[in-house]
Amino acid sequence: MAPVGPRSGDAIFSSIDRVNAELFTLTYGAIVRQLLTDLEDVEEVNKQLDQMGYNIGIRLIDEFLAKSGVSRCVDFKETAEMIAKVGFKMFLGVTASVSSWDAEGTCCSIILEDNPLVDFVELPDTCQGLYYCNVLSGVIRGALEMVSMKAEVTWTRDALRGDDAYELQVKLLKQVAEEYPYKDDE
Amino acid sequence: MAPVGPRSGDAIFSSIDRVNAELFTLTYGAIVRQLLTDLEDVEEVNKQLDQMGYNIGIRLIDEFLAKSGVSRCVDFKETAEMIAKVGFKMFLGVTASVSSWDAEGTCCSIILEDNPLVDFVELPDTCQGLYYCNVLSGVIRGALEMVSMKAEVTWTRDALRGDDAYELQVKLLKQVAEEYPYKDDE
Repeated sequence: MAPVGPRSGDAIFSSIDRVNAELFTLTYGAIVRQLLTDLEDVEEVNKQLDQMGYNIGIRLIDEFLAKSGVSRCVDFKETAEMIAKVGFKMFLGVTASVSSWDAEGTCCSIILEDNPLVDFVELPDTCQGLYYCNVLSGVIRGALEMVSMKAEVTWTRDALRGDDAYELQVKLLKQVAEEYPYKDDE
Repeated sequence: MAPVGPRSGDAIFSSIDRVNAELFTLTYGAIVRQLLTDLEDVEEVNKQLDQMGYNIGIRLIDEFLAKSGVSRCVDFKETAEMIAKVGFKMFLGVTASVSSWDAEGTCCSIILEDNPLVDFVELPDTCQGLYYCNVLSGVIRGALEMVSMKAEVTWTRDALRGDDAYELQVKLLKQVAEEYPYKDDE
């Protein structure tokens, strides 16, 4: 079920243009701070971060498909593995794992083993309710949509909120058939 | 006058944590778009990008000093060379050059040979007047301030505005003596 192992993500990551991770972390922090100042509402900031991520995801998928050389995944399970093993490695240089599949194979968890977005971050009390890394859920949602998978992506664990890990639940809502629609028996 | 050559920047760059450059470029683009939407005023966006850069710069200098292993520069000329040759390489993976020094050695130009912030960027007509990369001027201003150099950093050439390069003018306004103040004959 894991068509491409972590090694591939490593190989791709080492062959592409990169920037300093701390610069990225601080730049992301500056965005969040800016949004908190401008919008003055944590829920609204969560939404905007997700939307920003979505806009990034719908473009990042092109880079992913071009540089990774992977062809279209056969199903959602393969896609989720690809995001965790290749996508996270390729873009953030970290590994993620997939677990907690439901019986239908339409819902799973992606657990981040390391999260470069949160280095040096501590949330003040005024930011309770903030999903600081919400850009990530948006990126996944946007990227999935471009490969015809409509999904809902939510944080189920967030270490900045006191949990012991960063965990995203990815739930496939609808898979749109593309050029070659699946046969439908009905 | 150039105490550390580009090789050092390369060596540092290859030894530190990094993220995918396209992710960084798209994330930065998402910030600019967000600011344009929220603030609806190009001049205000320029200011905010500069301020964000300043906030990044005052923190990034710590990483720079820690990872580069360079000790405090003796003067502004050495500092400018260090920013161009080591700083840009270390954080963005690109090389920059310093030129156009004035007679007093307090004003120079930093020219970027490559600019990862602007990949895929085209400014619509409604954004005339935008200094898209203004975060960079803020970063330099912030970082300089942390080593006791108050400077003014302005774009003198901007390829997104039709110029043939990206060029920042860095003008030293005031150098604050630190622990060991210079002797003053007056």
